[in-house]
Amino acid sequence: MMIGGETKAVEALRPVFEALAPSPTTGWGHVGPPGAGHYVKMVHNGIEYDLMQADAEGFAILDAKEEFGLDLSQIGEIWRHGSVVRSWLLELTTAALAENPQLDGIAPYVPDSGEGRWTVFEAIDLNIAAPVIGLSLMGRIESRDEIEFADRLLASMRNGFGGHSITTEKAIDNG
Amino acid sequence: MMIGGETKAVEALRPVFEALAPSPTTGWGHVGPPGAGHYVKMVHNGIEYDLMQADAEGFAILDAKEEFGLDLSQIGEIWRHGSVVRSWLLELTTAALAENPQLDGIAPYVPDSGEGRWTVFEAIDLNIAAPVIGLSLMGRIESRDEIEFADRLLASMRNGFGGHSITTEKAIDNG
Amino acid sequence: MMIGGETKAVEALRPVFEALAPSPTTGWGHVGPPGAGHYVKMVHNGIEYDLMQADAEGFAILDAKEEFGLDLSQIGEIWRHGSVVRSWLLELTTAALAENPQLDGIAPYVPDSGEGRWTVFEAIDLNIAAPVIGLSLMGRIESRDEIEFADRLLASMRNGFGGHSITTEKAIDNG
Amino acid sequence: MMIGGETKAVEALRPVFEALAPSPTTGWGHVGPPGAGHYVKMVHNGIEYDLMQADAEGFAILDAKEEFGLDLSQIGEIWRHGSVVRSWLLELTTAALAENPQLDGIAPYVPDSGEGRWTVFEAIDLNIAAPVIGLSLMGRIESRDEIEFADRLLASMRNGFGGHSITTEKAIDNG
Repeated sequence: MMIGGETKAVEALRPVFEALAPSPTTGWGHVGPPGAGHYVKMVHNGIEYDLMQADAEGFAILDAKEEFGLDLSQIGEIWRHGSVVRSWLLELTTAALAENPQLDGIAPYVPDSGEGRWTVFEAIDLNIAAPVIGLSLMGRIESRDEIEFADRLLASMRNGFGGHSITTEKAIDNG
Repeated sequence: MMIGGETKAVEALRPVFEALAPSPTTGWGHVGPPGAGHYVKMVHNGIEYDLMQADAEGFAILDAKEEFGLDLSQIGEIWRHGSVVRSWLLELTTAALAENPQLDGIAPYVPDSGEGRWTVFEAIDLNIAAPVIGLSLMGRIESRDEIEFADRLLASMRNGFGGHSITTEKAIDNG
Repeated sequence: MMIGGETKAVEALRPVFEALAPSPTTGWGHVGPPGAGHYVKMVHNGIEYDLMQADAEGFAILDAKEEFGLDLSQIGEIWRHGSVVRSWLLELTTAALAENPQLDGIAPYVPDSGEGRWTVFEAIDLNIAAPVIGLSLMGRIESRDEIEFADRLLASMRNGFGGHSITTEKAIDNG
Repeated sequence: MMIGGETKAVEALRPVFEALAPSPTTGWGHVGPPGAGHYVKMVHNGIEYDLMQADAEGFAILDAKEEFGLDLSQIGEIWRHGSVVRSWLLELTTAALAENPQLDGIAPYVPDSGEGRWTVFEAIDLNIAAPVIGLSLMGRIESRDEIEFADRLLASMRNGFGGHSITTEKAIDNG
């Protein structure tokens, strides 16, 4: 819990925060004036988007190395203990992979809840480059794009020069 | 044509290059020692990947602004004359959009011919950042990824915390 | 010129647009309702940011290949005639490199005029991924960042694990 | 420790691995055939680059919000307890910020040890998009680039159209 507000108001509510937090002295704090709490929570979520994306890319690279026949949840389990990349999100990832190793039946469709967008807008407004947070957001947007106009246009442009053949949708449907 | 080789060898072949080039004095040149011609051609193709991606993203943003009912090939036609973004690839793009405004039947599947990869590897080896060329390559790779392991894993992770619901593939198939 | 407005108003001003455009019939158009003209011009500028970035990365990769001793303006001149990457921005690039091959005295400081930001915000609001346009904007922002907090923090973090040594600013100043 | 090798060889060395690992049963594992251990370690490091970049961007965005006067190490301390982004790297980050809140004297110069490059090359060879890992590597490369040819060229191009003024290096040196 990241609390923003006037000091007087925050102090008055201290017993509430101490009761709600994981422990009375940690897991919450008065971080600044009104608005600061939401701001800090927003940035937290922006970071979260990219931490998730990092794990996802890494396990996808492991998954693709078929010749090694890697057990992804075993690797996550090793990394959970003593590695540099250990994190709470890695624990979730490992649990997900243990339960459903090939992620069967889960669509590659990733919603976003708005705070990642807000983080990117704030970064740009503040003149701070946030390339990987920005890209993690865009990756989620792309995962939900059913039209894929840009990729269709690229395929069409490639056909315009050099006579590269276009893959028709029918060919894709037929596998 | 970008020719690499010993000066003596290139001069001996000058009549050939002059005959093949768009004009005897332009469109070809002796750019450096053996290997230089392929290197310059490689970078040309790396740039090409991102020029195409830029146009594709721009027209996708125009296409998505439904309330304006924009005619994309009309806009391409305007931009071809006197705008800052005029280019040969814009001419191809405009022609493609004029012929097939909604890109019907064209799959969002974008091959790459290898020179973009080589450009990215060279940039990294030379310690030169090439973020948009690299990303244009990765976008093409992503367009052809049928497994989409990373996005499936992200969807699964989101479910692990906060109880965000997962979109099942069945739901996607049913529209 | 990309004109937005009511048809009646645009038609009344037709003689003005025809006089201002590169030619009466090309280089301008009535693209949609009020607001549409600014919107199309905004996307034009977003594309422009990335077209520039593509050329800049490409020539930086050529410049770094010291063993070939490439003449960048010669290469730009060859590409201007008949290559896939020919564009008006390439002509500017080539002229800039011919006049000042090593770009002496020009600071790596790249302003942005606001329309690139607006393009990125619109893309996100419309749920269209625009990764290379977004990254081109962020690259410009980064070029002007004098604090570089993120990179300082990365250097500090590397020191925290593995005992990687930190480069002090004094060492950098001393070359 | 991620061990690759023939099962017989790994079993013979089991007592060694059990002695070296954080605990006999966790923190190490036989992940696959010869080469698999290095491969998994390589991907670990690729993920690490981006986890670090995510934290660095997030704290840079917090640092830039001057009106809130945020205490970055306090925020790191809160996030360490119960937040979604808690990780070992966050602990290092928090310690670094507690010790040196403004990162005084630390140059924005970020080395890389080669395994991030290898991860990016492998991803591309396997046709797996790894945009944020790739970008984290490129950001490190950029942090060490003293020439900044691409940004100089962008500044020069901007001057070529529209007459945008160029910032000279002298002006930058004078603040």
